[in-house]
Amino acid sequence: MTKIKIKRAIVSVYDKSYLNILADYFVENNIEVLSTGGTSKFLKSLNNQIKIVDISEFTKSDEILDGRVKTLHPMIHSGILAQKNNPSHLTQIKKIKVPPIDLVVVNLYPFESVFQKKGVSEEECIENIDIGGPTMIRAAAKNFQNVTVLTDPKNYLEFVSEVMINNNAISSESRKKFAKLAFENTSYYEGLISNWFNKNNGEVCENKTSLPIEKISKLRYGENPHQKGTLFKFGKNKFTKLSGKDLSFNNIFDLEIAMELAEQFSKPSCVILKHGNPCGVALDKNQDKAYLKAYKCDKVSAFGGVVAFNKGVTAKTAKEINKIFTEIVIAPEFSSESIKYLSLKKNLILIRYRAARKPTKLQIKSTRNFLLVQSKDNKIVQKKDLVIKTKKKPKYKMVDDLIFAFIVSKYVNSNAIVLANDLSTVGIGVGQTNRLDSAIHAISRMKKNFKKIKPVMASDGFFPFADIVVLCSKNNVSAIIQPGGSKNDGDVIDAADKNEIPLVFTSVRHFKH
Amino acid sequence: MTKIKIKRAIVSVYDKSYLNILADYFVENNIEVLSTGGTSKFLKSLNNQIKIVDISEFTKSDEILDGRVKTLHPMIHSGILAQKNNPSHLTQIKKIKVPPIDLVVVNLYPFESVFQKKGVSEEECIENIDIGGPTMIRAAAKNFQNVTVLTDPKNYLEFVSEVMINNNAISSESRKKFAKLAFENTSYYEGLISNWFNKNNGEVCENKTSLPIEKISKLRYGENPHQKGTLFKFGKNKFTKLSGKDLSFNNIFDLEIAMELAEQFSKPSCVILKHGNPCGVALDKNQDKAYLKAYKCDKVSAFGGVVAFNKGVTAKTAKEINKIFTEIVIAPEFSSESIKYLSLKKNLILIRYRAARKPTKLQIKSTRNFLLVQSKDNKIVQKKDLVIKTKKKPKYKMVDDLIFAFIVSKYVNSNAIVLANDLSTVGIGVGQTNRLDSAIHAISRMKKNFKKIKPVMASDGFFPFADIVVLCSKNNVSAIIQPGGSKNDGDVIDAADKNEIPLVFTSVRHFKH
Repeated sequence: MTKIKIKRAIVSVYDKSYLNILADYFVENNIEVLSTGGTSKFLKSLNNQIKIVDISEFTKSDEILDGRVKTLHPMIHSGILAQKNNPSHLTQIKKIKVPPIDLVVVNLYPFESVFQKKGVSEEECIENIDIGGPTMIRAAAKNFQNVTVLTDPKNYLEFVSEVMINNNAISSESRKKFAKLAFENTSYYEGLISNWFNKNNGEVCENKTSLPIEKISKLRYGENPHQKGTLFKFGKNKFTKLSGKDLSFNNIFDLEIAMELAEQFSKPSCVILKHGNPCGVALDKNQDKAYLKAYKCDKVSAFGGVVAFNKGVTAKTAKEINKIFTEIVIAPEFSSESIKYLSLKKNLILIRYRAARKPTKLQIKSTRNFLLVQSKDNKIVQKKDLVIKTKKKPKYKMVDDLIFAFIVSKYVNSNAIVLANDLSTVGIGVGQTNRLDSAIHAISRMKKNFKKIKPVMASDGFFPFADIVVLCSKNNVSAIIQPGGSKNDGDVIDAADKNEIPLVFTSVRHFKH
Repeated sequence: MTKIKIKRAIVSVYDKSYLNILADYFVENNIEVLSTGGTSKFLKSLNNQIKIVDISEFTKSDEILDGRVKTLHPMIHSGILAQKNNPSHLTQIKKIKVPPIDLVVVNLYPFESVFQKKGVSEEECIENIDIGGPTMIRAAAKNFQNVTVLTDPKNYLEFVSEVMINNNAISSESRKKFAKLAFENTSYYEGLISNWFNKNNGEVCENKTSLPIEKISKLRYGENPHQKGTLFKFGKNKFTKLSGKDLSFNNIFDLEIAMELAEQFSKPSCVILKHGNPCGVALDKNQDKAYLKAYKCDKVSAFGGVVAFNKGVTAKTAKEINKIFTEIVIAPEFSSESIKYLSLKKNLILIRYRAARKPTKLQIKSTRNFLLVQSKDNKIVQKKDLVIKTKKKPKYKMVDDLIFAFIVSKYVNSNAIVLANDLSTVGIGVGQTNRLDSAIHAISRMKKNFKKIKPVMASDGFFPFADIVVLCSKNNVSAIIQPGGSKNDGDVIDAADKNEIPLVFTSVRHFKH
């Protein structure tokens, strides 16, 4: 592939930014520009010396159907698709009097911003599905060995910079790169349309589709230094880094879980998290108290952790946080004084995070062979979901602790066991391959840090056997909450009755792997 | 939207299957069919009474550029895009003598199968990027209020069944559904092309793109019963269910990890896994011994687990497996006798799984706000990667155990601590929020099941402090393998020297969250 000189361009753009860069380039290089209505007028207003040929004049066909059909014409597409090193192609286009086109500058109707508008009609969305534009982009990108295609105004300067120092010629590498960007654009656009058609039926698709993804940034690496990592947009929360070093792949994974858990509660909450699992969660009437309670749950694990709050961070809390090494603090707001304190530690990352009104609906994870897609576990158990299964009822205050502990268990890897007291976790059993071990770990962790408390216990899945109830009775557990649903529920309830431990079922399971 | 009668169709298909269904329908309903070369001939061969009009005759333009430009013509696209309830549209197309088109039957050049061919050239791939086809499909799908579009031969019967009982008219619901399927097709196709352009640079995309995904099936539910779940293709391994009940979302997640771990080894291996983490892994010269060793590691957790092998399952192993309740057995092959035994348990799921030659390169997980994409952790640590950091060297046999344990740690959630002896795990510490607790758990689990052994210890991440080395010395740990890289490495090495425990660094971390 060789360098190709630019003599003739088609320009048809919805987004008219940076067009001045091209306008001057066109004039200086005496390039003939085929264009349509709005774009044509705009170009002339930028530089009235541009040699513009109206597309309908060029094709000798009028625009029809209110502009629905303008560029879908063989004279346009043979000009774009002809191979310049193919003599037969050149003879054919000469015969129909089509000059070859060297540069295609097209961007599309703004389907994405239109379908996201509040109260937008189906008709308006459909009207913004561009047909002519993607066709020209795709034809030009297919024929990148002969044609340059620009689909993003941000690339105009790069293009002009190259041709200006190369006697108005462009390299094959650049043409291929712009073709790649062009197909990135059309595939993203097409993914949006396909997903829009499916948005109301709760399914990703009937047979196949594509998920449109927009890159935010490369990450320094993935989960481990020998893995590459890249971050893409998915939800619509407002996420701003206020200070500190670059976020890693694992930082992002951790802080997202921490913040989501913090937001499950309306009272001031604090979550401390490490390696994807909370090591301390607490609620209190103010934030600094919540932080101290969460920290007390497991001071060893809290070292270097992610700390998330559901309310704005105050100076008082900031001072407490600064007493130990914390990697990330995340909250919907920070007082300016708190920022002053926290940014004293130059490695500490501060993130302001405001949740979107609508929760993210989908969750995706890949395995080696499959993509597992599910609706996100957005269920929050409430008092009305609870069914008391034992003769002994939990006391009023206990019920708050039970619900609190069960909500925390949703964010702890299965098998999860959460011990809580006074709206604070006091022992968390994480990710064990059997539930009894998880309970043993939670209790032993609690005993290390707390004396003489009577915690409640939450389990993310049902108890398969009564053994955990027996363990609870030996360790002052005051009430138990779990989904229920085991074939041994009868035994489990009997054991709870026998040991006089109130047992509550939720009928909701919160496995998280 | 009302029912629309079908009078005129465009048919242009690469995949000619099931066309006979449409051929007969066209004749019976006296439908005029616009078509091109190959499709036209094929239709005539199916039923020579079809009223076929050649597209170049219809447009009065010759096909040009070896067929690159056939249907990219205003007469075709105004026929497809005209709104039939819009008097101005009707006047305009009448003026240019274009009759409205009611049905568009198009499928595309087989880009997917072509770019996957071994040794295929770039030119051949590019030649198979269809331009005219997607344009007709997209125009028809955009105008679904007036036009029906069929892009998948499997939908012909459904279409004909509806029009046959409705006096050759089709409902608006069906038109919209077929439009949705059409955009699913074009978005998948476009995603393939975009990813093909990026396949060699190790990046998903420069700015944005879409990930082409193909649905395999709906799952009964997601990770929990209140979540919807769907399974999509991602890798290319051969996966066949031989018997047993339907796989759940969590089953699939678990068996994929189990099988991948089993395949990390060349000796016969067995992995038993629960809730995403292995609870027993062993190698031996034959499979039934490997199974018994893996089972012995943690008999409690093994109950109801996933059992994976890297070699074909024999009858002898099948009989051993049948002694306890197992949910899934997965292996590259099963002897017919083993299938006979294992299928005696009607709920037991048997999966034959043959790994693809090329490992899956990408891994994806979503958080609430982001999509985290990374290259998969396909690194397998070998002897040459190890650096001995202590005066005391590990014995020859110990090195095999060290590497074995470190490979297992890659599949255990962080913080992971794996104790191994004689190529078998003897204690696994899983997913703790601090590494010391993980080590304590692994050791206490080992002590429960094994007496008087001197295991090696692997850690998926570095030791932040020397405390775990001290713990090892008190518990007969004979050697330690870990990535290294802590600022306290000096203290850790000193402690290992002092306690005469050989310590090996890998420089490779295997976090998995």
